[in-house]
Amino acid sequence: CLSFFADDRKPDTMERLLRRFRIRSQLARECVAEFLGLYIAVFGSGAAAQVITSEGTHGSYLTIQLGSALGAIFGMLVAQGVSGAHLNPVYSMSLCVLGRHPWTKLPLYSLSQLIGAFLGAGTVYLQYYDAIQAFTGGQLLVAGPNATAGIFSSYPAEHLSFWGGLVDQVVAAALFLLCCMALEDKRNGPLPDGLQPIVVGVLILTMGVSMGSNCGFPLNPARDLGPRLFTFIAGWGPEVFKAGGGWWWVPLVAPFVGGLLGTLTYELLIEAHHPNTSNEEQSPRRQQEVVELEEMDNPLHNGLKTLNTI
Amino acid sequence: CLSFFADDRKPDTMERLLRRFRIRSQLARECVAEFLGLYIAVFGSGAAAQVITSEGTHGSYLTIQLGSALGAIFGMLVAQGVSGAHLNPVYSMSLCVLGRHPWTKLPLYSLSQLIGAFLGAGTVYLQYYDAIQAFTGGQLLVAGPNATAGIFSSYPAEHLSFWGGLVDQVVAAALFLLCCMALEDKRNGPLPDGLQPIVVGVLILTMGVSMGSNCGFPLNPARDLGPRLFTFIAGWGPEVFKAGGGWWWVPLVAPFVGGLLGTLTYELLIEAHHPNTSNEEQSPRRQQEVVELEEMDNPLHNGLKTLNTI
Amino acid sequence: CLSFFADDRKPDTMERLLRRFRIRSQLARECVAEFLGLYIAVFGSGAAAQVITSEGTHGSYLTIQLGSALGAIFGMLVAQGVSGAHLNPVYSMSLCVLGRHPWTKLPLYSLSQLIGAFLGAGTVYLQYYDAIQAFTGGQLLVAGPNATAGIFSSYPAEHLSFWGGLVDQVVAAALFLLCCMALEDKRNGPLPDGLQPIVVGVLILTMGVSMGSNCGFPLNPARDLGPRLFTFIAGWGPEVFKAGGGWWWVPLVAPFVGGLLGTLTYELLIEAHHPNTSNEEQSPRRQQEVVELEEMDNPLHNGLKTLNTI
Amino acid sequence: CLSFFADDRKPDTMERLLRRFRIRSQLARECVAEFLGLYIAVFGSGAAAQVITSEGTHGSYLTIQLGSALGAIFGMLVAQGVSGAHLNPVYSMSLCVLGRHPWTKLPLYSLSQLIGAFLGAGTVYLQYYDAIQAFTGGQLLVAGPNATAGIFSSYPAEHLSFWGGLVDQVVAAALFLLCCMALEDKRNGPLPDGLQPIVVGVLILTMGVSMGSNCGFPLNPARDLGPRLFTFIAGWGPEVFKAGGGWWWVPLVAPFVGGLLGTLTYELLIEAHHPNTSNEEQSPRRQQEVVELEEMDNPLHNGLKTLNTI
Repeated sequence: CLSFFADDRKPDTMERLLRRFRIRSQLARECVAEFLGLYIAVFGSGAAAQVITSEGTHGSYLTIQLGSALGAIFGMLVAQGVSGAHLNPVYSMSLCVLGRHPWTKLPLYSLSQLIGAFLGAGTVYLQYYDAIQAFTGGQLLVAGPNATAGIFSSYPAEHLSFWGGLVDQVVAAALFLLCCMALEDKRNGPLPDGLQPIVVGVLILTMGVSMGSNCGFPLNPARDLGPRLFTFIAGWGPEVFKAGGGWWWVPLVAPFVGGLLGTLTYELLIEAHHPNTSNEEQSPRRQQEVVELEEMDNPLHNGLKTLNTI
Repeated sequence: CLSFFADDRKPDTMERLLRRFRIRSQLARECVAEFLGLYIAVFGSGAAAQVITSEGTHGSYLTIQLGSALGAIFGMLVAQGVSGAHLNPVYSMSLCVLGRHPWTKLPLYSLSQLIGAFLGAGTVYLQYYDAIQAFTGGQLLVAGPNATAGIFSSYPAEHLSFWGGLVDQVVAAALFLLCCMALEDKRNGPLPDGLQPIVVGVLILTMGVSMGSNCGFPLNPARDLGPRLFTFIAGWGPEVFKAGGGWWWVPLVAPFVGGLLGTLTYELLIEAHHPNTSNEEQSPRRQQEVVELEEMDNPLHNGLKTLNTI
Repeated sequence: CLSFFADDRKPDTMERLLRRFRIRSQLARECVAEFLGLYIAVFGSGAAAQVITSEGTHGSYLTIQLGSALGAIFGMLVAQGVSGAHLNPVYSMSLCVLGRHPWTKLPLYSLSQLIGAFLGAGTVYLQYYDAIQAFTGGQLLVAGPNATAGIFSSYPAEHLSFWGGLVDQVVAAALFLLCCMALEDKRNGPLPDGLQPIVVGVLILTMGVSMGSNCGFPLNPARDLGPRLFTFIAGWGPEVFKAGGGWWWVPLVAPFVGGLLGTLTYELLIEAHHPNTSNEEQSPRRQQEVVELEEMDNPLHNGLKTLNTI
Repeated sequence: CLSFFADDRKPDTMERLLRRFRIRSQLARECVAEFLGLYIAVFGSGAAAQVITSEGTHGSYLTIQLGSALGAIFGMLVAQGVSGAHLNPVYSMSLCVLGRHPWTKLPLYSLSQLIGAFLGAGTVYLQYYDAIQAFTGGQLLVAGPNATAGIFSSYPAEHLSFWGGLVDQVVAAALFLLCCMALEDKRNGPLPDGLQPIVVGVLILTMGVSMGSNCGFPLNPARDLGPRLFTFIAGWGPEVFKAGGGWWWVPLVAPFVGGLLGTLTYELLIEAHHPNTSNEEQSPRRQQEVVELEEMDNPLHNGLKTLNTI
């Protein structure tokens, strides 16, 4: 438990050197973490890049979903200790609505996330430049058999109507945020500390395998818009905004609606009803804690009894 | 360990607002949790929906099983702290039989689960409405190459006889409950707190990959009947009850038989024989705990010895 | 930590009833646990059964490996608290060689495991009876396109020579036991309590995906012979022993040789060199523990100092 | 927590015998652990061996990636308690640069890793000797449809230019080390002790599914050169160095550049800015620890107060 004390060590030359660059502003640190976190998470797009450019020999639908889910896990692990690893404006907004995060931070978080996603997409493109050139013959297309824009942002499937897409995004985002709130809620489930990022990653995988075929479950405005802006600049051109009948704004707006819906649903159906912090009727984990405390006290109280009888 | 104390915070405006809606009845809270838990779990059906409607391009048999297993994990994580996340009438019944859950709650739990599964199926249908329309051309069929009823409830494979189906369900449910009882049994394995839902999800995946081809291992009467009722209403019609020679009642009855069998098997072969809570012949974890206590006591006793020599 | 105390509860009628059947012999309890554990683990064979009988529509090579690996996890979770969940005569032997398990228990453990595997295979056959009949047209064959014996026991691939099979089994068993010893070795890695079964399952999956194509990595004499005896009786006949040039005894003997090799390799290369339990040069976890103790003691020693100055 | 005390036991005959061979030099022990760790990790190559030699019937691209990732996990679990399980010269170098590992150990660690990888490749070849012979007809080729050298070391895809390969390796290694540093950083995320090897394995899987199609993400000079030397000797001949326009040195050099880049990025963007170890503005985990300590102290201080009032 006290691992922190165990690995405290005198900073040596290198570390002293690095400390020179130390940013003291907590907000600045958080924005950097949000930036880096989403930058890392976006590397998951590589999974789609390699399946598409290898025409299916280097992966499958499952590996694409694993890429996004696992990529997100490491984005969260990189940012969690500093900013709490929101990595999604919808998640930040939900915390603001519940008064657990200051509204003033929302735009800065979102901007940092957007920049992270933009540069992440750029790095993935850099890494797959040869493969994309070889596959497309240099033609960067948004639709058709040789389309590659789908590597970076979401586009609706042919069968999907406008309303269908809206519903899909609202439902998916509601489910996502509802589950995130449950993972956040210490009084609901005693998830071991530090496993949240991994479980959220599993949640993303769950949604990928069960909600991916309509429009690739964007769910994350920053994660969707950043790479879209990159593809716009990098050569796919205005088509990235025109495609799917101007689809681009749906994954920007719908997830906020869905996220709010899911957050409030969880709060109203579960969290609002938690008993006050009294010992009766509480979650198993809490009971243990109480027991632990009592166990810790017992020997002492005995000890003191003995003493008082001196 | 004492994380609860760490994240206790004053409820702000929003939280105070939400507390207004607070339900004080423990039973009502539990039913809401069972409802929401299974509602969430049923989203896993989306995996089947997208594999079927995409004709295999958006997933595989494995992603379908991942969908059910991982969906169930999040259903459990949402409900666990309130109702213990039974999410299955067979599981509730087993606990009642062992006297660990009041029989009076059984019907209410089951009804909440049924409603959750019904509405969950409805939401999945809503989300995949366009895809199902495009795939079926509007014809909602229970059998044949374009059948879509299998997305929501179980139907027997062609090779499966009536008795074969009965045996399959009894065996699968017995195995499932036997393992659940083992995970419940603190004196058997020291599974880290909060991992139960994840391990139960892995158990569901295990059964999906090894017992799914006869009739899709329903195992859960509420999870099977709720969506079946939905498909009955939503346009698949009476065929959902006629199909497979009136198969529908098998996954309603057989799992109870199997579940009881599995529960008693575990109790009679393992749990009944646990030593009484004495220090000798106990599980490694328990020995540690004892050691911990002793470790805690030692310094004190020494302390007191010193004192008594004053 | 002290969760055990938290869930101690008065046994009610049902539990009192069950206690009637209580076995007090520790050895008998262990044998029952080993029996039940391997019985559960063998259900993983269902994965192969459904891939073979569905001709690949209900799974893939990966789901077959997931079946064995995850099945084994639950076998271990069921038995771990009672017998330590050996579930493999080779593992029991290795512990005996290291003097961590009495040789006298080895035959009884192995026999219980054998019976568990035999009955497990029987149950899988029962569950897949219809499917196997439909697939084979009633002809239970050991070789050829419609062979089904491979569901239950291992047979060598065509390319595999006798010596190749021997080497494969020795190498695989050596690797397996070497890793098991590492997981056992508390002074090497601080694996969270209760995760061992899951990590061993992951190890089995690792071997399945990287060592499965020569002869299906039996590695476990009880797990291989039990089901082979069942298929011999159930209708596959003497061919199960003749096939592969009398292959059957290789997975019975080679794993013992390999297991011993792996165990001693680990002991000689790693465990033998662990420092004595002094505070310097020890694994990070242990340092923490010491820190924890010191943290615990400090206040006390201060306390006593205070006292001694009275 | 104090599990260590629980499994301390008197060494019996066998263990006393093994202690005879005890190496007291900490450095020697670490080199042996690095050797054995990478030797184990390389067994993951078997996944590629069986997919290639079975022409895809015994696995898929995903199982190949699972092989490398899971193999690495067990390599780390075997070595972690002794040497910290670097298993990669790039990782060792990064720690040296940060002053967390002595430069003097770098060459010895790297050499041990190289030898481990060389012998690991040899063992995999031994295990798949028959399969490779049957598949290649005895011709060990580096390129073409029957190529088998790719089982052991990395070769660039046809579409990959020299600069593309360099970029791919620098980017991949940067991402890999950046994430490793985050996992190392106790002040960032409270990952449960002992899960690091598993999470690093998941990281390797992430990179496999999202960065594998350019040149198979070698990332590890020892892991790539060792097996390449083995194939050079074992019959693939000088072609292993000539192939891909003399590709062999890229995975030797580029990962060091990328690794340094990633390490410094993490240090400059995240770790350098961690607050000093004061109680305000720290990661949730640390707050808990403080709470725990206080909880532990309270009763005592009370105790002492009582005493001082004697």
